Amino acid sequence: MARRTGKHTILLDTMPVVLSWAAVGGKLEGEGPLGGQFDEINEDSYYGEKTWEKAESAMQKQALTLALKKAGLKGEDLQFIFAGDLLNQSLSATFAHRDWGVPFVGLYGACSTMSESLALAALFVEAGYARLCAAATSSHFCTAERQFRFPLEYGGQRTPVPYGNQRTPTAQWTATASGAAVLGAQGRGPRVKAVTLGAIVDMGTTDANNMGAAMAPSAADTLKKFLEDTGTTTADYDMIVTGDLGQVGSALLGELLAKDGISLESRHNDCGLLLYDREKQTQVESGGSGCGCSASVLCSYLLPALQNKEVKDILFMATGALMSTTSSQQGESIPGVCHLVHLTGGA
Amino acid sequence: MARRTGKHTILLDTMPVVLSWAAVGGKLEGEGPLGGQFDEINEDSYYGEKTWEKAESAMQKQALTLALKKAGLKGEDLQFIFAGDLLNQSLSATFAHRDWGVPFVGLYGACSTMSESLALAALFVEAGYARLCAAATSSHFCTAERQFRFPLEYGGQRTPVPYGNQRTPTAQWTATASGAAVLGAQGRGPRVKAVTLGAIVDMGTTDANNMGAAMAPSAADTLKKFLEDTGTTTADYDMIVTGDLGQVGSALLGELLAKDGISLESRHNDCGLLLYDREKQTQVESGGSGCGCSASVLCSYLLPALQNKEVKDILFMATGALMSTTSSQQGESIPGVCHLVHLTGGA
Repeated sequence: MARRTGKHTILLDTMPVVLSWAAVGGKLEGEGPLGGQFDEINEDSYYGEKTWEKAESAMQKQALTLALKKAGLKGEDLQFIFAGDLLNQSLSATFAHRDWGVPFVGLYGACSTMSESLALAALFVEAGYARLCAAATSSHFCTAERQFRFPLEYGGQRTPVPYGNQRTPTAQWTATASGAAVLGAQGRGPRVKAVTLGAIVDMGTTDANNMGAAMAPSAADTLKKFLEDTGTTTADYDMIVTGDLGQVGSALLGELLAKDGISLESRHNDCGLLLYDREKQTQVESGGSGCGCSASVLCSYLLPALQNKEVKDILFMATGALMSTTSSQQGESIPGVCHLVHLTGGA
Repeated sequence: MARRTGKHTILLDTMPVVLSWAAVGGKLEGEGPLGGQFDEINEDSYYGEKTWEKAESAMQKQALTLALKKAGLKGEDLQFIFAGDLLNQSLSATFAHRDWGVPFVGLYGACSTMSESLALAALFVEAGYARLCAAATSSHFCTAERQFRFPLEYGGQRTPVPYGNQRTPTAQWTATASGAAVLGAQGRGPRVKAVTLGAIVDMGTTDANNMGAAMAPSAADTLKKFLEDTGTTTADYDMIVTGDLGQVGSALLGELLAKDGISLESRHNDCGLLLYDREKQTQVESGGSGCGCSASVLCSYLLPALQNKEVKDILFMATGALMSTTSSQQGESIPGVCHLVHLTGGA
C-alpha cells in the first residue's frame, strides 16, 4: 500500500511496471538525435488526414496502438486511459481515444501532461483500481501554431512550412510527436517508484516567447520538495530530465536550485534539448516544447535506457506553462507546473 | 482497500467523506429555484474583476475558499486540488488555484468535470494518497459565449446581455456558477461509496445546439455499466442526477435506457433542469449547462439533501460534450463522456 512521504511525495510500494511504450514523430523529429529510436516517423504533416488536428489525434492513437501491440495487448485490456493535450478542449486526446471503449480520464497539464498522466496511471495501478492503464499525450507544430500564434505576431513566420527562421532565441519549437505508455501491476519493465505532483508556481513571467523561464521555477519547486521528502540528493539519480525548459529555462533552473545549494551538474537534461540538434536544427531556437516533446523523449530514449540498464534511476519531470492566448492578451503572467515521476530500471 | 467490482466500477471501502462544499452563482442562477441555497450570489457578471475570464477564476477560487472556511480548513491543509473548466487551456482553474501552493491535478472533462474531480479526489483519499483534497470547477455564461459562440452564428443574439431570446429550443444555457467540495478520510458528511469513470461515447451527433442529445448516450452507457457491475437497479437509489442533459437530452436518456429495460421513473433529474425555472427563465431553453451547472447543483442542493437526510443514495452523473469550435468546424461529431459518483447519506 502506498504511503505518503513528507508533504508532497507518494512512494509506490508495489512499484507499478511500465510494460510497453511507443513514440511517434514527424519529419523534423525524425531528423533529430533520437529519430532512429522512434517507433514511427511520418514525414506527412497531415498523417494521411484532412486537417492537422485530425493528424495529431491519429498520431496519438497510433502511439497507443503501437504501445499496446508491443505488449501483446488490445485496447479492451485497459481499464483506464489518462490523456490530454494542448489543443482547446483537449481535442486531440478526445478524438484519439473515443473508439477504444475504455474509461477516459481527461487531463490538462499543458506540456506536463506526460508526467501527469504517467503519475495518475501508476497511482491507479498501485491502489488496485486497475490492472492495466495507459498514459498518452501529443502535440503538433501546425496545430499549436494555428491555435496559439495566429493571428498573434511573434517575430517569426507564422506559416508552419517552410520553417521560420526569424524567431526569438528564447522561443521553443512545438514538437510534432506523441508518446504513449502502458502500465500494469505485474510484468517486466521500468518501474514507477515515487510521484510528486506539483503545485502551480507563478513568478510573474509574461513573455509567451520564453516559456522555459516561466516553467523553470515550478521545476525547481517540485524537485526541491521531492528531494526533501525522500531525504535524497541529486547524486542519487542517474538522470534528472525536465521537459521542456529548453536552453534558457534549463540555465534558469540551475540558477534557482544553486540558490538552495542544490547542484544538478551533468545529471540534468531537458527533453526540449534532447529531441533536436540545436546546432543543425537551428529553427528550434531554445529547444523543443509541446506535450509530445517530453512524451516522445520518454518513450524513445528514457524508458529504453532504463530497460537496457544503461541507467538505473531517472527523475522524469515534465513541465507545463498553464497559459492561453486569452490570458496573455489580458496581461496575465504565465503560471507553471511540474509533476515528477521517479522511474527505476527494469528487471 | 478499494476493490473493483465488475469491469468498470470501483467500490470505495473506506467511503471518503465530503466534509464541506460551497456553491457560488450569478444573477440568473440566484433567481432560479436553487438560488436561496447558494452560498453566494454575485449579480456583477464581472465579479469585481476587469474581464469575464478573471471573474470566472475569482468565482472558482471563492467557491473553494468558502468550502474550506465551512470546514475550518485552510488551503495549505489540502494535499491535492482536482479542477478544470471549459475555457481554452483550462484558464479558470489554473488562475483560481495558482496561489494555494497545493499540488494541482488539472482535468478536462467539459461539463463532466465536477464528477471527474469528485471521483479522483475520493479515489486519492481512499488509496491513502491524501487526507484532504478538493474538487472544483466553474463556468461563466459570458466566457463560454465569447469562446464558443463568437463569431459563430447560432440563431441567437451573440451579445451576452441582454439575454438572447432567439435561440433554438434544444440549446442550453451556460451557467455562471462554481462549486467546490472538500473530501477527507475522516469526519461527518455524505460519503462516496462507488465510482464509475466513463468511456467516451460518440453516436455521431453533430448539432452543437443540441449537446444534451450528444451526451445522453454516454450517460446511458455509464449508468448501465454501474448497475451491471453493482448488481443493483435504479430502484435502489433515491435520486439519479445527470448533468447537463437538459430537457431534450433527458428525454433521450429515458428512451435509450428503456430499450435495455431500465426505467428511471421519477428518480431521474438533471442539473440543467434543476438550476433554472424553464417556465419563467425561458431564455435557458432546454436547460442549463457548463461545468458550473452540475457543480453548483451538487453543492447547493444534492449534498445538503444528503446531509439533511432528505435522501439517502444519489447517483451523481455529470456529463461532458468533448468538442471544440475547431472540431465542429471540421465537421466532427460530438463525443460525450459521463462519470458516475455514488454518494450516500451523511452520518
